[in-house]
Amino acid sequence: MTSVAILGCAGYTGQETLDRVLAHPELEPVALGSNSLAGKPAWALDPRLGAADLPQFVPVAEAASAEADVFFLCVGHDEAAAFEPPADSVVVDLSGAHRLRDAAVAEAWYGAAPGAWSYGLPEVYRPEGRLVANPGCYATAALLALGPIADLADDVLVDAKSGVSGAGKALKATSHAGAVLENLTPYAVGAHRHAPEIAQQLGFAVCFVPHLLPVRRGLLATCYAVGASAADARERLVDAYGDSHVVRVLPDGVAPELARVQGTDAAEVAVFEDRATGTTIVMCALDNLGKGAAGQGIQNANLALGLDETAGLRLQGVLV
Amino acid sequence: MTSVAILGCAGYTGQETLDRVLAHPELEPVALGSNSLAGKPAWALDPRLGAADLPQFVPVAEAASAEADVFFLCVGHDEAAAFEPPADSVVVDLSGAHRLRDAAVAEAWYGAAPGAWSYGLPEVYRPEGRLVANPGCYATAALLALGPIADLADDVLVDAKSGVSGAGKALKATSHAGAVLENLTPYAVGAHRHAPEIAQQLGFAVCFVPHLLPVRRGLLATCYAVGASAADARERLVDAYGDSHVVRVLPDGVAPELARVQGTDAAEVAVFEDRATGTTIVMCALDNLGKGAAGQGIQNANLALGLDETAGLRLQGVLV
Amino acid sequence: MTSVAILGCAGYTGQETLDRVLAHPELEPVALGSNSLAGKPAWALDPRLGAADLPQFVPVAEAASAEADVFFLCVGHDEAAAFEPPADSVVVDLSGAHRLRDAAVAEAWYGAAPGAWSYGLPEVYRPEGRLVANPGCYATAALLALGPIADLADDVLVDAKSGVSGAGKALKATSHAGAVLENLTPYAVGAHRHAPEIAQQLGFAVCFVPHLLPVRRGLLATCYAVGASAADARERLVDAYGDSHVVRVLPDGVAPELARVQGTDAAEVAVFEDRATGTTIVMCALDNLGKGAAGQGIQNANLALGLDETAGLRLQGVLV
Amino acid sequence: MTSVAILGCAGYTGQETLDRVLAHPELEPVALGSNSLAGKPAWALDPRLGAADLPQFVPVAEAASAEADVFFLCVGHDEAAAFEPPADSVVVDLSGAHRLRDAAVAEAWYGAAPGAWSYGLPEVYRPEGRLVANPGCYATAALLALGPIADLADDVLVDAKSGVSGAGKALKATSHAGAVLENLTPYAVGAHRHAPEIAQQLGFAVCFVPHLLPVRRGLLATCYAVGASAADARERLVDAYGDSHVVRVLPDGVAPELARVQGTDAAEVAVFEDRATGTTIVMCALDNLGKGAAGQGIQNANLALGLDETAGLRLQGVLV
Repeated sequence: MTSVAILGCAGYTGQETLDRVLAHPELEPVALGSNSLAGKPAWALDPRLGAADLPQFVPVAEAASAEADVFFLCVGHDEAAAFEPPADSVVVDLSGAHRLRDAAVAEAWYGAAPGAWSYGLPEVYRPEGRLVANPGCYATAALLALGPIADLADDVLVDAKSGVSGAGKALKATSHAGAVLENLTPYAVGAHRHAPEIAQQLGFAVCFVPHLLPVRRGLLATCYAVGASAADARERLVDAYGDSHVVRVLPDGVAPELARVQGTDAAEVAVFEDRATGTTIVMCALDNLGKGAAGQGIQNANLALGLDETAGLRLQGVLV
Repeated sequence: MTSVAILGCAGYTGQETLDRVLAHPELEPVALGSNSLAGKPAWALDPRLGAADLPQFVPVAEAASAEADVFFLCVGHDEAAAFEPPADSVVVDLSGAHRLRDAAVAEAWYGAAPGAWSYGLPEVYRPEGRLVANPGCYATAALLALGPIADLADDVLVDAKSGVSGAGKALKATSHAGAVLENLTPYAVGAHRHAPEIAQQLGFAVCFVPHLLPVRRGLLATCYAVGASAADARERLVDAYGDSHVVRVLPDGVAPELARVQGTDAAEVAVFEDRATGTTIVMCALDNLGKGAAGQGIQNANLALGLDETAGLRLQGVLV
Repeated sequence: MTSVAILGCAGYTGQETLDRVLAHPELEPVALGSNSLAGKPAWALDPRLGAADLPQFVPVAEAASAEADVFFLCVGHDEAAAFEPPADSVVVDLSGAHRLRDAAVAEAWYGAAPGAWSYGLPEVYRPEGRLVANPGCYATAALLALGPIADLADDVLVDAKSGVSGAGKALKATSHAGAVLENLTPYAVGAHRHAPEIAQQLGFAVCFVPHLLPVRRGLLATCYAVGASAADARERLVDAYGDSHVVRVLPDGVAPELARVQGTDAAEVAVFEDRATGTTIVMCALDNLGKGAAGQGIQNANLALGLDETAGLRLQGVLV
Repeated sequence: MTSVAILGCAGYTGQETLDRVLAHPELEPVALGSNSLAGKPAWALDPRLGAADLPQFVPVAEAASAEADVFFLCVGHDEAAAFEPPADSVVVDLSGAHRLRDAAVAEAWYGAAPGAWSYGLPEVYRPEGRLVANPGCYATAALLALGPIADLADDVLVDAKSGVSGAGKALKATSHAGAVLENLTPYAVGAHRHAPEIAQQLGFAVCFVPHLLPVRRGLLATCYAVGASAADARERLVDAYGDSHVVRVLPDGVAPELARVQGTDAAEVAVFEDRATGTTIVMCALDNLGKGAAGQGIQNANLALGLDETAGLRLQGVLV
């Protein structure tokens, strides 16, 4: 078995990473770091863990110095930036600390200088080495839609919509249910830190606007690829994902839905052509905590460890 | 008092039109047409109407031949197209039957030839005469955002999101709560009939994609005006709506929210500039049943009748 | 005009009280207290207030010493308990500080000794004097259902369900949208502080269980009156509310719905008989922020001031 | 492998049964009946089935005459009542047709005479033989809470709340999202057909009131066991479910939540004592489509076939 340390178990990405680790045939949790849960039994995180045979929670700093084959960083950007990877261990950083390669850009958005980390979006940008920066949830959806067709378009706009778990478990006025229910809130309009991440991978700037949906989990990116042909785009996407067990290209005329990817590590991609202007519209739906976070983290760890790429993933939700 | 006939009281737009008529100081309902409610007492539509002094419901055909100063057509496109306006009466058609002026386009989208109806979006396209085509909900939001700045942009894309009441009260699989809750559904992607309506008013084609939100009411149009300057756009919009009691231009940096316009006939407009590409983003939020339907219908009737433009409107929702 | 000071404008009950004061023909806000908003313009609370001619926000302590005919206490229990009512002013306390008359019970639940305040649920327990304790939202619903029939039942159980605004605007893990959406959470099971309040008014103990609903606003109390006859209960309730503009007794067979009372100060009451056991079921739906808080506060103030009881109330929501 | 025929694949229970069959190591679908999908490929039901190797859909009548070891009846009561079980096959009826043993009661509620079917709620009422009536969703929750303690209570009331999928996929006004969102609807108050089912198993009449929640899936039964001691009730429930992999008795003070059982075949049970009256409150949460329908159906089939009781079940949802 491969030993695993998770830093930051109490947040959404930490919980979901633990979930996938428990379902993984080759991974075994040996250190569960959480400052808020340190010293508490497993069921303090969730009553469903009452029956699981888990190590007790320890402070994050203690988990950071555990002996483990794999470390998952499910902590804030600053803490992740400060983590010193042990020699030989695989480290997957689910924060944004190591996503941006350009030092000035990284400094501007995360106040952190990037190191020699590989960007890991396996279907489009396969990670290399043992230090992997896990993409942002919006960036994952936009890049699954646009990565394979970037050179076909003259201009690209991304209008994205995410469930509230994308904003994390921290208590904020904008995540209060009274502000979320029966509402739709655009935020960080034209100024979100996933924009430079998408631009870095595509090689050019994109206009990006995120909106907060009144749903618990799930994310849809509606991408406008001005100047691209829909037929060419579809061909490229089928080429890219035809053999994937993770990304599903939908039949012509079928649109992605959050409901079909919630609680899973799968993604759906669809291509449409606007009747009036000919603009190519590529949509991608995924679960922001699955393919958009923990699921992709496990996938990246699997690749770095030489395991089956989809081991431990939740690829199929319930059928309703 | 001005006498009113409503054709189609049992649907959402009919109910809301009745609501505004009851709140209107100058309008008095004299004929309430509804085939499903014909012969039933007022509270059969809603227990809250138990105390109201209302005429009994009659078949739509009977309401259509009533003597009334104003007719509100809250029926399907076909029925609205078949309605013969009495001489001298004001008629506001809340269906799509009379929105498109080009015969071929109207035929293609509604199977109906347009007559001599005026398009009534008072703040941007002031209606004339006594026959008024009430705009679609998406078109209203897009045109409030884009109408005053159409000539500033090289290219325009509209990504819109609407609550489920926008699809009407008819029973459809896509309106079943099991398909709506915890979901987001793009539909009629690049092929929605409000696209030609927006194009007609702006004078050029637009790329338009609607999405179904898991909310009861409320609509947001996120409009991308490529090539326009955000400062110019803001100036134009403040000029256009500075004196309006219906449309509110938000302070710099404040985004529209459904929660603030739900249950009202008001709209919110905001302008942003994308940091990476300079693209101007104009957003408009409104209640699809208020400013997007019944509220605007009353506003149009007020203008045609020479009444105070905002009489009977619900301009302020509860403050939470 | 009657001058009004609101202590605590930034919370839900404060916002809604301000809303009703602005809509009231006789009330004029002269002091708006909010520590978080002190010194800020009105639109900092809500962009919709941009056009209103309002005094600037001041610290709560400053508002507490304003000269005003009416004070609305929309602050926490401790702050409300510490407020010293000016001679001659009307004070409506929307917190729980003055609801419980028994000193030991009040101390146990609120850590506060009650003063000479009158409990104000106008339809059932008409307030007297100028110091009025505004009932809790759950208590209001339970007492509207049970107050008029208390002596008919051998035993009473109240199963209540409330929208998330009932828990206030404070940031708590249980109000995070990720914990609320697609969920239903029983809380304070058999141990909620509205239980002794209901018991005090009915004169005997009741079993009370509240549940948190995934809705923004609205509350339903399903009350089981074991041993009462449904016909007798209906007769009593029709007697009690037949002339009310606030409480609506629904026709036989029609159940209350949150949707019909949201955003209003009205309430709906219905009576059913269980087919198998003959148990009488009385239900009451109301908006926890309306009849359950601010609306009732205004109603109580109107009575204490000798104004029309329903002045300023929102008695009719939109009709959909 | 054990061959399976599903009658009625397009409804919610049919879809979920197919989901569990596909995940089952010993079951193989050989006939998929659906009149609406007959002749269509698997992905017409759901794009996620595109990759599955499934037989084409056939008319229900054709599936009913297939050679199969197990039949799951996911059709209406009438169709299920008319089905003639082949000799030697196991049949699990997910409709209500065979739940009520008393002929007059069955006739009154389902218009159908019961046959020699066994009621299958494995943890409390273990099924016998090869013809199994699968309990209703509300009945399952109420009986998991009350079955083991029925003799302890003097009187029992069940206040239940269910997500909209409990009402099926059929198009009804009450399942329209416009009627469900931001709402809570009591229905069939004191007159629901699961009441006689609960009464049959407990041996005495119960007062039962269901409410429709604005959630997609999940059900909570709040059961009031008047006269029972909470300590005794807890002891009985721990005895009953201590070894179960399906039903989890929660630690003292922890309430069940829909979120933890959604998408699973597990259930949560908790016991509380009302502080004021001493009433024992037992709550049970489950997924109405999981333990409340398809999951229990598979569990019953496993028992009838002599397979591992939990084979194919989804016992663990995602951890957030």
